Amino acid sequence: MKKQKLHIVKIGGNVINNEAILASFLKDFSELKNPKILVHGGGKRATEISSEMGLEPKMINGRRITDKANLEVVTMVYAGLLNKKITAQLQQNNCNAIGLSGADANCILAHKRIVTAIDYGFAGDIDVVNTNTINVFLKNNITPVFCAITHDKNGQLLNTNADTIASEVAIAMSQLYNTELNYVFELKGVLENIEDKNSVIKHINYKKYEKLVSLGIISDGMLPKLHNCFNALKKGVHQVKIGDASLIKNKNKLYTTLSI
Amino acid sequence: MKKQKLHIVKIGGNVINNEAILASFLKDFSELKNPKILVHGGGKRATEISSEMGLEPKMINGRRITDKANLEVVTMVYAGLLNKKITAQLQQNNCNAIGLSGADANCILAHKRIVTAIDYGFAGDIDVVNTNTINVFLKNNITPVFCAITHDKNGQLLNTNADTIASEVAIAMSQLYNTELNYVFELKGVLENIEDKNSVIKHINYKKYEKLVSLGIISDGMLPKLHNCFNALKKGVHQVKIGDASLIKNKNKLYTTLSI
Repeated sequence: MKKQKLHIVKIGGNVINNEAILASFLKDFSELKNPKILVHGGGKRATEISSEMGLEPKMINGRRITDKANLEVVTMVYAGLLNKKITAQLQQNNCNAIGLSGADANCILAHKRIVTAIDYGFAGDIDVVNTNTINVFLKNNITPVFCAITHDKNGQLLNTNADTIASEVAIAMSQLYNTELNYVFELKGVLENIEDKNSVIKHINYKKYEKLVSLGIISDGMLPKLHNCFNALKKGVHQVKIGDASLIKNKNKLYTTLSI
Repeated sequence: MKKQKLHIVKIGGNVINNEAILASFLKDFSELKNPKILVHGGGKRATEISSEMGLEPKMINGRRITDKANLEVVTMVYAGLLNKKITAQLQQNNCNAIGLSGADANCILAHKRIVTAIDYGFAGDIDVVNTNTINVFLKNNITPVFCAITHDKNGQLLNTNADTIASEVAIAMSQLYNTELNYVFELKGVLENIEDKNSVIKHINYKKYEKLVSLGIISDGMLPKLHNCFNALKKGVHQVKIGDASLIKNKNKLYTTLSI
């Protein structure tokens, strides 16, 4: 039997930080006909509130080091402020959204990242995505909106990379659905030339990906993002696209599609 | 057909503020056999974080005045920090909790309180409790945990009294269940003599309630609490009890039961 399509969309800080872009994106997202899941990252509000509370954000290799005080702030900002704001706006657009952390209905189980050279603090690495529960929501026309917080089932909340949440949720849900995973960020796609915002590489397969990495065209923040994408494709996700907020409406057809 | 029992429990700041009392309460709550719903208020953490962020909490007649900045803080603290902390701890106790604001799955619709003599700001008065959706959770063994935030379906989140959320949810769910509503707070029940913490009035019917009000034995914060209780009983809630955190386990059988 042909599986039903499920759309998983991850939005980053650039969409969240701009009220107009966010409103327009959430309207477009609400209009998607298929079952859908939204995953959102943090954005600058977490940093602002940390500093209002006298905390210094700590980053190593682009990942936030989450001490107890920082965990409190990201839990407040991601699971509280941003997640509920996004949920209320989706409701306004008649999308029956439900804001979730991984702790809610035990949707996403993780463990505290093992300390090696770097101690990331209360950072979570995902173990299990609870597909049955997520499917209960989808079957009842409820659209899950995940923030970047998970839990370990021992009462500990954990800060978890939103790109990874999106890919792990997409991989797990591929058992039940024909999944399309979209990464929405500030660029129109993966760029051939970082100076030219329109130099979008329209299609990248795994072989080309390896070549682009070796040439240094894919580097820095794009490396873990594309690693997540290809991992998702290898593990059953049907389609992955990367682009800006217009991507989900296919308005300008300028984005990057990935395949293995 | 006899309706199944549903237990709705509201906890106040005194339970939330004390880690040990909260942990013990959540363990007891997890062990309740019937379908159940938890509603929680704020507690001192909201006040602390407001002041860390340089905001002064404003209160009139025991109700918080919620300006835009205060709404941001209560959304963060209630829907983020406290709601997810409670949810993660219930998960630890094998209670499949889901943390919710009224915006999530459109569970509780409210409108911004009409401005009369006092402008309460972004305070919500409840219009509709979405019983069908709440029942989807209960039928799937998922325990809703509501914080004191609702929405207006126009994208606006609203700060809403947790006692009122508890009674309105209990009233609405009485269509489907035989509901018991518990208010857990710092005292063992309604006291005959405020100086004697053990002078619990074990049972109050509406006639006695009116008498206790006229005698000034019920006053201040107890007035709106008991008003909520009797309103709930009049509108179909089967049983209402008021007491401390031991109430839900019936450990010491010292609490106040209300009837009409």
